[in-house]
Amino acid sequence: MRFDVVTLFPEVITQSCNFSIIKRAISEKIISINTINPRDYTIDKHKKVDDTPYGGGAGMLLQCQPFVDAIKTIEKTQNSQTIIMSPQGETFSQNMAKEFSKKEQLIIICGHYEGFDERIKRLSGAKEVSIGDFVMTGGEFPALCVMDSIIRLLDGVLGDSESKEYDSHYDGLLEHPHYTKPREYEGETVPDILLSGNHEKIKEWRRLQQFIVTKQKRPDLFEKFLQSDLSDFDKKLLKQNNFI
Amino acid sequence: MRFDVVTLFPEVITQSCNFSIIKRAISEKIISINTINPRDYTIDKHKKVDDTPYGGGAGMLLQCQPFVDAIKTIEKTQNSQTIIMSPQGETFSQNMAKEFSKKEQLIIICGHYEGFDERIKRLSGAKEVSIGDFVMTGGEFPALCVMDSIIRLLDGVLGDSESKEYDSHYDGLLEHPHYTKPREYEGETVPDILLSGNHEKIKEWRRLQQFIVTKQKRPDLFEKFLQSDLSDFDKKLLKQNNFI
Repeated sequence: MRFDVVTLFPEVITQSCNFSIIKRAISEKIISINTINPRDYTIDKHKKVDDTPYGGGAGMLLQCQPFVDAIKTIEKTQNSQTIIMSPQGETFSQNMAKEFSKKEQLIIICGHYEGFDERIKRLSGAKEVSIGDFVMTGGEFPALCVMDSIIRLLDGVLGDSESKEYDSHYDGLLEHPHYTKPREYEGETVPDILLSGNHEKIKEWRRLQQFIVTKQKRPDLFEKFLQSDLSDFDKKLLKQNNFI
Repeated sequence: MRFDVVTLFPEVITQSCNFSIIKRAISEKIISINTINPRDYTIDKHKKVDDTPYGGGAGMLLQCQPFVDAIKTIEKTQNSQTIIMSPQGETFSQNMAKEFSKKEQLIIICGHYEGFDERIKRLSGAKEVSIGDFVMTGGEFPALCVMDSIIRLLDGVLGDSESKEYDSHYDGLLEHPHYTKPREYEGETVPDILLSGNHEKIKEWRRLQQFIVTKQKRPDLFEKFLQSDLSDFDKKLLKQNNFI
């Protein structure tokens, strides 16, 4: 999969992709990451990429020409998706990560400091994607979040020992609590069941913990889960414990 | 404000904070950013920080000792908040950013690859914070999002020309469209009203666009806005345009 990131701060993207699983995915040629700086494409003699808003008001706006021309230089593959990081966009989710992970190419347009001229969105045909309901200085950190969550879904990126099946949000529930050595730490002990060696009971306990944790911390997700197509195992466990 | 980031990849934090407004806020001494690597505190002779989960299953888990001991070395100020980046946490929002921006110190605990031993959360007393409903490899990119959104709210960080009042999510509505020079670009023109010089009409048009955009793209936010304490200006405009 190929990522093309349109950004005024390409070094933030390249430096941050030089570690951990993203670095490994690049060196194993599972992904490639390319950055395009609109400042390299401005026709303004002072290399300016922004100007004041029509109609007045505070702040500066990113201009069409440098962004649209920078985007045009990107060679699009057949199965390509363009997104623009914007607080007005659809909120990024695990489902969107899965959908994007099936693309050959993801083009990510990042703003910085300022708003975009509205026409950049229209002319690029980009889907607006928001990382959440909060305001940021630039699209670079949100773009890194989006890239990371997609890259870990690609075949060959995570090893067997880094299984993604039990991750929170994978099947709409939060994870059960995890414990590792030592058995006791500062008076806090590991639940006995996990030391029992009874795998059936452990499986049940963990699933039950997922129900409890999700219902308590994210009742909205739990409600959705109850409406979904439940397995017999889940149905039985939910009934036994008076969730349904 | 002081940020202490507990992370196995401190260079991701320090490199990414060396640009744009975060760099400026550091050099103007509005903030300081400190990183603590749990690997420097492990008592394991191989510098290991993880182990297999009790009860079996794929993956490794981050252990109590290196994390708890690393966190203990951080000198806490009086008005301090500790958070742990976790998909199980409360979803980060603009309100949370505002709340955290009033603290003297924010301690951010990041995992990587793997889950935390549940006891790290309990022993650190950290509030679990999630960046959104998607799975990531580590807490570093989410931590950078959280830091950025807080830092830009601190006094003296944004100049007058970078006003934060009109940002999306600032008053619960998305932003109106913005336009800058040129008037026409690839056949796309600026709405006439913005060129009229009539500031009253421009103000009305922009507010109306906020209503339209928010209702269309984020009906959940628009519903919340309608339930809030509306100004006379907003009430009149909403009525005139049949929103209420």
